[in-house]
Order: sequence, then structure tokens, then C-alpha cells
Amino acid sequence: MGDLNFDHPLQSNYSPVESLLDPMEFRRQAQMMVDFIADYYENIEKYSVVSQVQPGYLKPLLPKSAPYYPEPIETILKDVQHYIVPGLTHWQNPNYFAYFPSSGSIAGFLGEMLATGFNIVGFNWMSSPAATELESIVMDWLGEILCLPKSFLFSGNGGGVLQGTTCEAILCTLVAARDQMLSRIGKENIGKLVVYCSDQTHSAFQKASLIAGIHPNNFRVIKTTSSTSFALSPRSLRSTICSDIQQGLVPAYLCATVGTTSTTAVDPLGPLCDVTKDYGIWVHVDAAYAGSICICPEFRHFIDGVEGANSFSFSAHKWFFTTLDCCCLWVKDPSALIKALSTNPEYLRNKATDSKQVVDYKDWQIALSRRFRAMKLWLVLRSYGVEKLRNILRSHVEMAKLFEELIATDKRFEIVVPRNFALVCFRVSPSAISEGKTIPSSELLGDNKYINDINKKLLESINASGRSYMTHTVIDGMFVLRCAIGATLTEEPHIIMASEVVKQHADAILNMSTLMIYMGRVD
Amino acid sequence: MGDLNFDHPLQSNYSPVESLLDPMEFRRQAQMMVDFIADYYENIEKYSVVSQVQPGYLKPLLPKSAPYYPEPIETILKDVQHYIVPGLTHWQNPNYFAYFPSSGSIAGFLGEMLATGFNIVGFNWMSSPAATELESIVMDWLGEILCLPKSFLFSGNGGGVLQGTTCEAILCTLVAARDQMLSRIGKENIGKLVVYCSDQTHSAFQKASLIAGIHPNNFRVIKTTSSTSFALSPRSLRSTICSDIQQGLVPAYLCATVGTTSTTAVDPLGPLCDVTKDYGIWVHVDAAYAGSICICPEFRHFIDGVEGANSFSFSAHKWFFTTLDCCCLWVKDPSALIKALSTNPEYLRNKATDSKQVVDYKDWQIALSRRFRAMKLWLVLRSYGVEKLRNILRSHVEMAKLFEELIATDKRFEIVVPRNFALVCFRVSPSAISEGKTIPSSELLGDNKYINDINKKLLESINASGRSYMTHTVIDGMFVLRCAIGATLTEEPHIIMASEVVKQHADAILNMSTLMIYMGRVD
Repeated sequence: MGDLNFDHPLQSNYSPVESLLDPMEFRRQAQMMVDFIADYYENIEKYSVVSQVQPGYLKPLLPKSAPYYPEPIETILKDVQHYIVPGLTHWQNPNYFAYFPSSGSIAGFLGEMLATGFNIVGFNWMSSPAATELESIVMDWLGEILCLPKSFLFSGNGGGVLQGTTCEAILCTLVAARDQMLSRIGKENIGKLVVYCSDQTHSAFQKASLIAGIHPNNFRVIKTTSSTSFALSPRSLRSTICSDIQQGLVPAYLCATVGTTSTTAVDPLGPLCDVTKDYGIWVHVDAAYAGSICICPEFRHFIDGVEGANSFSFSAHKWFFTTLDCCCLWVKDPSALIKALSTNPEYLRNKATDSKQVVDYKDWQIALSRRFRAMKLWLVLRSYGVEKLRNILRSHVEMAKLFEELIATDKRFEIVVPRNFALVCFRVSPSAISEGKTIPSSELLGDNKYINDINKKLLESINASGRSYMTHTVIDGMFVLRCAIGATLTEEPHIIMASEVVKQHADAILNMSTLMIYMGRVD
Repeated sequence: MGDLNFDHPLQSNYSPVESLLDPMEFRRQAQMMVDFIADYYENIEKYSVVSQVQPGYLKPLLPKSAPYYPEPIETILKDVQHYIVPGLTHWQNPNYFAYFPSSGSIAGFLGEMLATGFNIVGFNWMSSPAATELESIVMDWLGEILCLPKSFLFSGNGGGVLQGTTCEAILCTLVAARDQMLSRIGKENIGKLVVYCSDQTHSAFQKASLIAGIHPNNFRVIKTTSSTSFALSPRSLRSTICSDIQQGLVPAYLCATVGTTSTTAVDPLGPLCDVTKDYGIWVHVDAAYAGSICICPEFRHFIDGVEGANSFSFSAHKWFFTTLDCCCLWVKDPSALIKALSTNPEYLRNKATDSKQVVDYKDWQIALSRRFRAMKLWLVLRSYGVEKLRNILRSHVEMAKLFEELIATDKRFEIVVPRNFALVCFRVSPSAISEGKTIPSSELLGDNKYINDINKKLLESINASGRSYMTHTVIDGMFVLRCAIGATLTEEPHIIMASEVVKQHADAILNMSTLMIYMGRVD
């Protein structure tokens, strides 16, 4: 490793293909890559789930500069295997339970191949009509599967668009809401606009607010408590809004969440919209993670009340098998987006746009250029069908239930919040430490520090084993382990193993901490 | 066509695969897709370059809703061929000369396959160290090939990041510049910030300014003229800045362009930066299209003066064979980006980040989630090498020269602006119409309308033929045809054919217009 020398380029004896898109050569190399990736999936469980490399590992392994002459794909693939794969955290590994899933699928992969193969730039209808039309059709299909109100669909004068990520979906709708409000009160009053969320809302919203020029003092983070399972309280929202209005500020936007990142808490959409409608506040529903499962009738109630919102998004690349990136955004009033985001330079003018008979998606998003993302979503819907997609998502929830059960029946652990979907939040409970130990329980329980340290060590130890990867959150002062089930390859045996990994590492950590306690070294 | 019926789902006899990522099934379906795309490239010249479908063509061809049961890939691929391909504008067709190229390559395609196969979400170092480290390394490689000043590279305390598009690169740097300035003058003064560009700057900058909350009245568009070949004049810039300062406004950001979209004009970076440095204005250099060719020593002078700028971007998906999307952005002061764009929620905290030994690219961009784009850029650099990449780009310039020559030697046409790179801007010249016609030349030349209509008809007629696709711009009141060479499959015979297509259609249009003139129907 690291013995390649590109610093003094010599003519390679590799004969470069004539064209960079020669179909024969394309066939040969792409089939080699198919095998490489299929082999990767076949062997994926052999890799440490979380990469164990140290910062800066790669630089000494690669040449100091780009090669002067072409290199054959065979050499490059060897380097991918030797240098890149060890530096990957394997999100497709069935033992991956960190953050939220990034769930790939064959259909998602094929759709990405097609989009990359065509390599069209679908900024407006004209630039490739199929890209725009397929996107509009598929977004209506998906909206219907989710039982979104017709007002969010093209068939009901709303409409859907594929963004890259939730961050972009939030930013676009926030800018639309901002400009809608400023058109009433004057652009110079941007400093008066206030936006709302809970302390559980994703950081993407804070970032979007900063980007959109909302004054940082006007970013309201409303505290949630365990009494509402960390959902945003409509009453707290109303009192915050009222206090802002009294100060001469102008409420503009609420970001509500269905399935928060920390614990998958669900904000009560109906009651929240009942509050906001009195003030003309734009409500965006961020269901990035949990939106997917709302295609199952028995989960649909989690987005009840969405009819009162202005926009709704979920990320098909998270838990809908559509590969990164693919965030589905629906809005009731596309014209608000278009007013805020459209540009019309001469070099993009065309008859179709002038006719106003077509959708030009460049006016629904930040960027001009856009990939043909509808292709992969269409392939996922068609390859698997609604029934199978529902059943797979249900199987993830069932596996989460199983994991929860396996953990909960071990008295050393506690489940920290009620499980809504396929995320289990748990920790070693204080009682597992205090039971029969010399440490006074007040010291253990006082500020969570000691018990948090134990749980932190447990998580580090699990992840260092390479057998499972979980992440954490802090909620109500508690350090909590998150086990998010949803990787495409995960099956029941992986769940059972994950619970065993947790227990084994807890054994070691708890024995060690007991020892430390007896030795009087508690910190 | 259109005879599929999904409205009454019946159990299909297609047996769904057990896992959505089963390696055997992955191999089978992905190889089928490789063949599909290779066949597409083999046959690409048979398709009309620009799609000839009418708005709304697709809806009647597809089922009203998503299927309930799985469908086999064979059926889906048939539908792609029958329903989608006719609705594509074929950006990879060698007869594609519209907008700017979206140049694919085998290496770019393979890199995308790998990124999609791994499907990691590289928001921070921890989430997949290889993704971050490869990106930093490749951006230094590429920066060196471009002879960017060391201050833009990680090795010189600057750094590079892969964004999706130029729009995002501009927005991120604008927000960094905005916040840097507001930290001096107070957040409440956002309404005082002024941003600058020329009337040739891409509309992405206007959009970014609106998104970032710059007051629309403070968006300065400085007029260019043919006397400077539509480059921004440093003198005009200075006088605009001075007038703003006199009015108590605060100049914050200049977007300079190397290779404008209309005509590939080049703003003089050195002299512009000499102006801006007196006022602490952030200068971004947008070389989205032309940046690529600056890897050739003989073209490098077009970005001379970049050392005075704060940031520089070019889009590798345009004319660097890296498939959409992949915009390379370098900044001298990453901390300005990070200050403006970082968030640090608990659920993303980790030891590597806390150690400050790593790059967390989430803080260099709008979104949190990010694809492993470095993979395809790395594959392009390694598969082709610097020499071959230079030679291919040079061959595009040579082909543009040839096209220019073929058009210019036909006296009916004129080349409208000097050609800098591989874009030729031309039109039927007024003299081609006025020569020996009954129309008084004052009427023809007075306001360009008549001659513009002729050129517009010419372009429509070329594109309707399906044999070539070009687009237009309007410059100095003139409707101009743009022929942008750079599609990967384009070779000399395509250029010769394109010039013949232009001439044949000009024959028809000019004969027709002569007839109309003789008949006294000139409008």
C-alpha cells in the first residue's frame, strides 16, 4: 500500500479508449463494476460496520497528485478495495443501526444508473420533457399512497417536487413563506420575521433560517418535555407567538416534525395548525424519516392534520429504498415557491415555458441544474409495488419491537421514550449501577453525569467492536443510545445479535464500573 | 401504448425477490441495465436530439396510480424505451450543442455507480472517513492542475468542497460573505448590504441573493458593452461601489464570471479584485463552464488574477466528464463558510469532530446529507489522466474553431462575439436579408426585430429537424444562435453536419423570407 508513484509520470502501457463513452468499453467496465458492487454486498457483513481508520489515514496511501496518464479500471478498483473500503462506514451493512437508515435497493440503484446514463439536466420542461412529467406523475402517485389531501397534488392544484434533502425543502418553503409575508409588510422588514420550532426540530431548520436571513434573535426554539413525549405543545406555541406579536414582530413560519431525529417524537399537526391559521403562519411538516411508513394505513394517523399545513416533505433516501439523495416535497401553493425562486434569463426562454402549459422545476428549488431523480423513485414504486413496500417497512417496525423487547426484558436497561416507528431509544438505567453499590444513589442520580458516562462508554465499546453501529442523543439530560432499524439487508438474526452485542458490552462496562466503584475511583 | 391497466391490481405471477439488495438479483438486474444503457449510447444518433413531444404527453401513457404488486424489470425497461426515451432531450447525443454540455463519461458513470452502491451519507468525517478524505485530496489534486494559488488548497490552509451546482456554491459563499460583513456592522443591517455582478452574470446569482435575504434594491447589475466583449468593467464597478457607499450602503460581494453563459465573456479578475480589495468585498469567481479548460496551460491566463478572489468554482459536470451533479468550489478561508453554515446538534457529536482534526463537510454546504461525489471525480482523473483530459478539451476547442470557420466563410452569417472557448455565437447577418431586397435597409436594421425573427425561425427550424440542437441568447438586442461543443461523443463529422444543417435551414428560411418580402408581408 502506498507504493504507487505518480510523481514522475511515465507513459503507461495502458491503451486509452478512443471515446470516453464508447459503448463497448462502457459495457465492459460497467459490468466489471456491477460485479464489484455485488461482491461488496455479498461480503458486507465481514467489514467493521463503522470504519476504524484514524483521521488522515488516506493521504499517505494515495499519490501526491493526479496521474498524468490514464490508469486502467482494474488498478482503480483494486485501490477502491484496499484504500477506500476500509475508510467507509457501511451504511448498507445489516448491522448498521446509526442515525437513520440510508436504505438502498436494486431498483433505486438501477434508477440512478438510468439517470446517470441519460445525464440530462432537467431544469425546465424543455430541457427533457420526460424528466419533468415523470416527476409530476410520480409525486402525485406517491402523494396518493400517503393519502395526502388532494390540495397537495397536481391533480388538486398543488404539486410535488424532488429536492435533494430536507434542508433544501425547508429552505425553499421558508423563502417562499418569507417573501409572501414580506410582500405584505415590505422587504425592509425582514428583521421582524419570526420562525418557530421545538427543541427537537432538526438542525437543518436553524441552518435554513440563517441562510434565508432570518435574524438569529427571531429563531424561536420552544422547549418540549417528557410529559408530551417531546412533542411541541400548541399552547406553548400560541403563547410564544402572542408574545412576539406584542413586541411588534411578525410570525412567519413553523417547522413541525413527524418523527424527530432524537427520538421520533411527533408534533400534533392538527392542533398546531389550529394555532398558526389565526396568524397566517406557513406550516411545513418535516417527516423526513417517518413519512415513509405513513403509506401503511395503520400509521397514517401520525400525519393527521397535515391538511392544515402548507407543505410536507419526506426523504425517500432515508427509509424508502431510493438511494441518496431524494427528498419528496409537496406544496399546496406552488405559485408561492415560484414567486420566490423563479428567474427567467433569456438563454433559458422557450415556447413551452412561454405557453405556461408546463412545469419548470428550476423555479421550485435552489439550483438551476437538476438530476433526473424521478427515475429512481418510479423504479422503486414499480419494482416493489405498494403492498411489498408496506410489508417491508412493517417488518422493520416488527424488528424494532423485537429489539425493544430483548432490551427491556434485561432489567439493567430502560426504554427511554415510547417507540413510535423503528427507532428504539434505550440506556443502562441508573438502578443497574446503584443496586447494592457503595455509591450513594443521590450521587449517581443527581445530575446524570455518572450514568451518562457509563452509557457513553457502552456506546463507544459497541461501535469499536465493529459488530454493530448505533449512535446517541441527549434527551432531558440523559445520554441515550439510538438503535434505528431500517437498513435494507437487516433481518431478525441481526437484531438478535445486536441485542446480544449490547448486553455483552454492558456486562463488561458494568463489571468494570463496579470494580472502579469498589476501588473508590468513580469519575 | 397506454394499454397497461393497474387500476384493479391483481396478484402478479412475478415472484418478488426476497431482499431488495440480494446480491445475485442485483447482479442480474444491474447487468441488464448496463446493456440497456450501452444500447442507448450505440443508438443515440438515431433519436431526435431535442425531444419532439408535446406538453402532457406522458400522463395518458402511464397508469393512474402506483402499482400494488411488483413488476419485473423487463417490463419497466420496455416502458423506459417506449415512454421515457421519446420524451428525453439527448444531452449525450453527439449532435447536442445547446446550453452548455453535460458531459458524461465511462469513468464518471462508474464513480456514480460506486457512490450509489456504497450509499453512504458523508455529512461529517465520522459518517464515512474515506468520503471526506478522498474529497479533500482530490480537490487539492484538481486545484493543483488548475494552478490555483496554494491559498485555495488544504495544503495552503484554504480548501475545496464538492457542491451540487454553481447555484449552491454561490449561495454558500454569499452567506459566508454576508455574515462576515454583518458580524462587523450588526445583523440588523442586512438591508444595507449590496452585491454586484454584470448583466452577463448567470441568473443563479440573482436567485442566491434573493434566497440569502439581500434586499432586491441592493442587487447591482452593471451594464456591459460589446466594446469590452461583454466583460465587466472595473471602472464601472468602482463608480457603482462609490455611489453605494455615499448612500450609506455596504458593498459585500462580487460575482465575477470566467465564461459567461450567453457568450463565454471573461471578466478581468485582476483589475476587478484591485477594486474590491479597497472595500473588503468578497469576490467569487464563477467559472462553471470555462474552468475546465483552464487545466490547459495555454488557457490558464483566463483565470489570471484569481489570487485576489475569495472563492472559485467550476462545474465538473459541465465540461469535465463527471456527470451531473458535481461543482468544485475552493475557498481561501474555510472558517468563513463554517461560521455561517455550521450546526452542531447533539445527535451528530462525535470524538473526531470534537478533536478538530477532521473536516466535516456538512459545515461547508447547505444540506446536511451529501453524496459521495468525490468518487466520480477521482475516477475521472485517474481513468483519463491530466494529459488526455487536456487533449479532449482542446479537441472541443478545435471543433468549435472548425464550426466557426464553416459558418464564417458563408457570407450570410456573422460571428457575433470573439470565440474564447468552445462556444460559437453566430447569426444570419442583416446584410444577408437586405442585399438586393425591396425592404429599405433602415427597416431591417432599425431595431433588429426583423433580423431577430429570421434568426429565431432559423433556430426553431434547426431544432425541429431533430438533427442538431442549439439554443440562443440575446446580446445587445441581437438574437444569437449558440453552438456549444463539448458533448463527449461529438467528433468532427458531427460538426461538419451541424454546419450543413444550419446552412440548409438558412437556405429555406431566407428563400421564404425573400418570398414574403416580395409579397409585401414582412412581419
